[in-house]
Amino acid sequence: MNNTTIDILMKRKSVRVFKDQEIEEEKVEAILKASINAPTAGNQQLYTILKITDPAIKEQLSILCDNQPFIASAKLILVYLADCHKWYEAYKDIELNPRQPEFGDFLLAVDDALIASENAVIAAESLGIGSCFIGDVMENKEEICKLLHLPDYVFPASLLVFGYPTTQQQERQKTKRANLKDIVFENSYYEMNAKEREEMLKYHYGDAQYHTWLEAFYKRKYDSSFAHEMNHSVKAYLKEYEEKA
Amino acid sequence: MNNTTIDILMKRKSVRVFKDQEIEEEKVEAILKASINAPTAGNQQLYTILKITDPAIKEQLSILCDNQPFIASAKLILVYLADCHKWYEAYKDIELNPRQPEFGDFLLAVDDALIASENAVIAAESLGIGSCFIGDVMENKEEICKLLHLPDYVFPASLLVFGYPTTQQQERQKTKRANLKDIVFENSYYEMNAKEREEMLKYHYGDAQYHTWLEAFYKRKYDSSFAHEMNHSVKAYLKEYEEKA
Repeated sequence: MNNTTIDILMKRKSVRVFKDQEIEEEKVEAILKASINAPTAGNQQLYTILKITDPAIKEQLSILCDNQPFIASAKLILVYLADCHKWYEAYKDIELNPRQPEFGDFLLAVDDALIASENAVIAAESLGIGSCFIGDVMENKEEICKLLHLPDYVFPASLLVFGYPTTQQQERQKTKRANLKDIVFENSYYEMNAKEREEMLKYHYGDAQYHTWLEAFYKRKYDSSFAHEMNHSVKAYLKEYEEKA
Repeated sequence: MNNTTIDILMKRKSVRVFKDQEIEEEKVEAILKASINAPTAGNQQLYTILKITDPAIKEQLSILCDNQPFIASAKLILVYLADCHKWYEAYKDIELNPRQPEFGDFLLAVDDALIASENAVIAAESLGIGSCFIGDVMENKEEICKLLHLPDYVFPASLLVFGYPTTQQQERQKTKRANLKDIVFENSYYEMNAKEREEMLKYHYGDAQYHTWLEAFYKRKYDSSFAHEMNHSVKAYLKEYEEKA
């Protein structure tokens, strides 16, 4: 069962090295329009998109997002903000004395932002433009809020970089995914045992020794300084949404 | 700037009334494969997908998701679980004494789940199959966890329903989105004033009277019983992720 769109969804992989070639304005517009036509909770479009064009801000973002210089070299950078601020302000405009945004509102906005992000990525891919999600934009709350002038109840949910992929990037193999049977279950959550988890993660470690690989992965991803910083910052963002007594 | 895929992204709209026509197994598989080939943080695939086939569970879900009977009538129901449990267990399997999942980990998993959800929606659309996001799956924590056997650190991030759209649904106009200029800003957050917000929301209320429409919308969406229940449940889910002292 195949078609052009499914082919794109199957083959799309992250691109982190870009040609020195600008993205045409009409393509940027097509990407943005496809993005904001994504599904959205109650048609509220609970996000705001920042198109980053200032080289100084690009540079700062590349530093604040776990020091990844390729971010600054991207031809297009979009920051997707989960935005519980704009509707809240509208409700205040007409004096409804609204309750403040809470955790559920926050997650609906994050959902909207991510769904719209993925539409941008797919639209770009269909135009031959590579992309990469940068989750690290959730780190360094204080500096990011200052840099992008974020008010309360506005959260940087994702950052996307775009550019034409180099030949090397085009030819790079897509990283393998888990087998469908290890991701999809019927009717209720299936609790794997240790052996099954080891088999499930085979897609990741291939011929490496499981224990050695997993320990290194743990340190690199889960017990890393960026992971700790992200947890710290997200905790700080969430504080705003706690009900004031 | 147009192509088949962008056309699908632009035109896709929610479908809530389905023909009594099964979705072919090979199409279901194509949807799931496109879904799990979505971008994912560190290739961790921090989600698990439940395919709901049991009519009793479908029925329960339709009740627990804000009493929406059309959910039970869908030919395919997928629940996307943001899953911080499986890697945590793997780390425990090899005795790494891992820190417990925290808020940043939780959000990365929610991101992964939503990105994969949107891929499923787009793949389905390309096959002529309609879909709808049900955010209400975040409500009624206690009952949902029991129904789907969810362990700690597994959060129902989205529920998707799929089916062939009726002719009436196919012909229904897609709801309008905001103007690009009201969603996309350059370099930093732009704080609108009340007048600008009223203009921005014009896509929503059309020829209605703004104040009247917004007050009704507020009551229906933001100050509704389902919104309060969602906030209450999400708060309860987040409790798990708080660092134990």
